[in-house]
Amino acid sequence: MSHPVAVAKQLEQFASEFDSHFDRFLNTTLDVPEELFEAIRYAALAPGKRIRPFLVAECCRASGGQRDHIWPVGAAVECIHAFSLIHDDLPAMDDDDLRRGQPTCHKKFGEAMAILAGDALVVRAFELLTREVADRSLACELVCELAQGAGWTGMIGGQAADVLGESEPPTLDRVKYVHQRKTASLFCAACRMGARAGGASSKQVDCLGQYGQALGQAFQIADDLLDVQSTTNAMGKKTSKDVTAHKQSFPACVGVEQSKAAARTEVAEAVAALAPFGENAASLRELAEFVVSRNN
Amino acid sequence: MSHPVAVAKQLEQFASEFDSHFDRFLNTTLDVPEELFEAIRYAALAPGKRIRPFLVAECCRASGGQRDHIWPVGAAVECIHAFSLIHDDLPAMDDDDLRRGQPTCHKKFGEAMAILAGDALVVRAFELLTREVADRSLACELVCELAQGAGWTGMIGGQAADVLGESEPPTLDRVKYVHQRKTASLFCAACRMGARAGGASSKQVDCLGQYGQALGQAFQIADDLLDVQSTTNAMGKKTSKDVTAHKQSFPACVGVEQSKAAARTEVAEAVAALAPFGENAASLRELAEFVVSRNN
Repeated sequence: MSHPVAVAKQLEQFASEFDSHFDRFLNTTLDVPEELFEAIRYAALAPGKRIRPFLVAECCRASGGQRDHIWPVGAAVECIHAFSLIHDDLPAMDDDDLRRGQPTCHKKFGEAMAILAGDALVVRAFELLTREVADRSLACELVCELAQGAGWTGMIGGQAADVLGESEPPTLDRVKYVHQRKTASLFCAACRMGARAGGASSKQVDCLGQYGQALGQAFQIADDLLDVQSTTNAMGKKTSKDVTAHKQSFPACVGVEQSKAAARTEVAEAVAALAPFGENAASLRELAEFVVSRNN
Repeated sequence: MSHPVAVAKQLEQFASEFDSHFDRFLNTTLDVPEELFEAIRYAALAPGKRIRPFLVAECCRASGGQRDHIWPVGAAVECIHAFSLIHDDLPAMDDDDLRRGQPTCHKKFGEAMAILAGDALVVRAFELLTREVADRSLACELVCELAQGAGWTGMIGGQAADVLGESEPPTLDRVKYVHQRKTASLFCAACRMGARAGGASSKQVDCLGQYGQALGQAFQIADDLLDVQSTTNAMGKKTSKDVTAHKQSFPACVGVEQSKAAARTEVAEAVAALAPFGENAASLRELAEFVVSRNN
């Protein structure tokens, strides 16, 4: 039996520890224009659940690795996530004013600085992996994994498909395509990267990647449902906008009940992929329950 | 005695060979949304001088390396350059309609797709270095060099300073700060990367980096001068806009004649940094003359 309450607590403690490392990785003794520096830190260090770095840490642990190694790896994934939020919120994309309960980066620093802050975070992600991971072969593997999860065949490709789909009514095929890439491929990369950092076999890397992929899809369906059912206050961002914007959302295609069922199916698939890891994957199992039961 | 005409011919031949590799590196058998794929290739494969990949190749050769190794390294640097052009042209930045003689990426594909095409090119740059460079230790060094040249302390930082400076009248200090970062730091990175790929000693890497830095500054002063003196037709982009936009430009601070003198000083510095390389650096010397004598 899983305990989403327990994992929520664990996630919170992890986020606090992670953030002290993340803060350090988003600092430099070199000269950076002050407003750019502030825009980067404003967006990236805003309170967040830090689910992706948590996946890195827990997949590392499930593979028998030490948590001490994972901070730059988690930070790299979170840099990519933060970049995607900044650019997705831009007027030319989703045009959002509110994110994580505060004005979006472009609302606070202007569009130019927000675009550049996102750009800088992408570069920083790859720099962290190669500068902070001592094992050079592992560092290269991590860069490849992150690039595949984030790039044109992954998250950025998914965001493009999402934007392009806005001119057409949502279909289940297109929704799944967008979810798989826009959200799940970075979850998948985070898991594969954690597994690699933990010294997993390539079979273990694939299993944890499958877990991440299914978890990401469950997470995004839950996000679509929260957009329909939650309030701006609870989410810290605008809600009820998917339907009006012709967003490729699950409920818009199959309704609320079937969306919930689809999310449960993804959770079951995620949990099934963890079978080889036994008790070492207890937190990952709980996390799968958590992502579909959360209310923000 | 240098021969800028000879190097112009050499550069042209190189560009044609490079482009066939670049085309290959901007392809994939995996699924990419078609409009994103086209936007990336439209912007990146548009005819260009390919000076940065040429620097990679020639610094590799000056260090005693083989040219066969440098294609993914040059492609990575050119991806970063192409990304910077796409994002700099956006309405929120320089708001340009014309680039390399054709409509800018956002004019042709819309702002959202242009932002994402730029994002994807950054990711692709780092992916190419780690996927295509067999020596893992070298690959990590190359990622670090490129990240430092492109990131918040390099090119992106310089673009931020340029945008932020638009609200204030240009000063020589600010112009130099912007030039050093926005243009010269990627030139410097290209040279250092080529040197590393060629197996240079760390002292040689530093010398070629100094060459690239000075060359980049000469190049940007020449660009400022062309903006004042050339026409839209010759440049393939809008001209005479620096002064009106309060751009941090050299001629706006010290006038045309002093700008020409400053460019000559940078060329002399660039050439001086090549002293240890003797005849192996002949093309690099000629290139330094070429960048200040070109008319587009």
